[in-house]
Amino acid sequence: MSKTIEMQKKVLSENDRLAADLRRALQDKGIFSMNFVSSPGSGKTSLLERTLQQLRDTWRIALIAGDVQTENDAQRLIAAGGQQVKPLVTGGSCHLDARMIERVIPEIDLDETDMLIVENVGNLVCPAGYDLGEDMKVVLISVTEGDDKPLKYPAMFRRSSVMVINKIDILEWCDFDLETVKKNALQINGDLTIFEVSCRTGEGLDKWYDWLGQQVRKKKAALNPS
Amino acid sequence: MSKTIEMQKKVLSENDRLAADLRRALQDKGIFSMNFVSSPGSGKTSLLERTLQQLRDTWRIALIAGDVQTENDAQRLIAAGGQQVKPLVTGGSCHLDARMIERVIPEIDLDETDMLIVENVGNLVCPAGYDLGEDMKVVLISVTEGDDKPLKYPAMFRRSSVMVINKIDILEWCDFDLETVKKNALQINGDLTIFEVSCRTGEGLDKWYDWLGQQVRKKKAALNPS
Repeated sequence: MSKTIEMQKKVLSENDRLAADLRRALQDKGIFSMNFVSSPGSGKTSLLERTLQQLRDTWRIALIAGDVQTENDAQRLIAAGGQQVKPLVTGGSCHLDARMIERVIPEIDLDETDMLIVENVGNLVCPAGYDLGEDMKVVLISVTEGDDKPLKYPAMFRRSSVMVINKIDILEWCDFDLETVKKNALQINGDLTIFEVSCRTGEGLDKWYDWLGQQVRKKKAALNPS
Repeated sequence: MSKTIEMQKKVLSENDRLAADLRRALQDKGIFSMNFVSSPGSGKTSLLERTLQQLRDTWRIALIAGDVQTENDAQRLIAAGGQQVKPLVTGGSCHLDARMIERVIPEIDLDETDMLIVENVGNLVCPAGYDLGEDMKVVLISVTEGDDKPLKYPAMFRRSSVMVINKIDILEWCDFDLETVKKNALQINGDLTIFEVSCRTGEGLDKWYDWLGQQVRKKKAALNPS
């Protein structure tokens, strides 16, 4: 098995090199970039639909929609008004890697992009290990999944900068405690920025939109210091 | 990358060999065995808690509870009356493999076991590729996850014999259509046996318990034909 581990290390360091190149390219254009990760069905696509509907006239948002199979998510994002939406079907792979992103990037006009969002494969384990060159990982968790998830899948919560707790509209029908999940998540990663939202009712989304705007403006300010 | 693929093939064929040994060992004892797979938070542990509470006085059930981190699930199953519950913490790995099961099996008294249940890591992708020597995979999906999941993660539904649709008590608050998910799943795998349950209210669980009993009896009958 040690040969496999060596091989994995080699693949990962190759991935890190490619991710660093991607990060530099996005940085040079002043593009704010996020890698959305979660279990299947936590609501990544729903949050992106809402975000597009709200912000598409304010910021130029490009999306890469990863899936093991089907282009369903990409189609939903186009229907929500996405101008630059690229499907990325892995055909079986359990995560996106930097090589896959590098191949899709030429299809995106980076000069016409303020924010790049990659929607990863629904998987709370494997995508944690792959840097895609993003500014930050955003992990979603829905209130139907159990409030001990950060403790059971710590790598993902440790490597994310933001945790979005989704589906708070059905909180009362779930055995899920908001304070417990936040305590568990902060125990793994004390630097997490946390949002509580419902993509169905819209509750809590204003704070998320405001925060996104701040990130885009910060990025542009760093590029063109006055 | 081709070296990595070769190495993966070697690891998988080694896994298949170990799984075949395990299958034979369980077969020889007339033990019915299942490998429970799903996204994080679909309710694998909840279904097993219910199953233990209902059937622990009828059948001797042994459980192996896999998790990336924590022994939370194993502790819940012991609290639910599990006599033989073994935690299996992968320490980062995104799936269980046959080698891990082989290491835990000596801790279980197979002569005192009618049914062996392995609760896999919460991951709808990677565990599909690893035979653990089980009679069948049981895939759970909860009504909060979206009814297109079988199309987006086809390998898992193709390799499972049973699909349990959980959390039907909150169906009316979710954008999830039961007929659509069943149609999508049967399109991937026409042989799926399907149950619709709520582990919270108990709805639909009687059929599940009955079916489990039938499988155990069939297994014993095959061992001792009259």
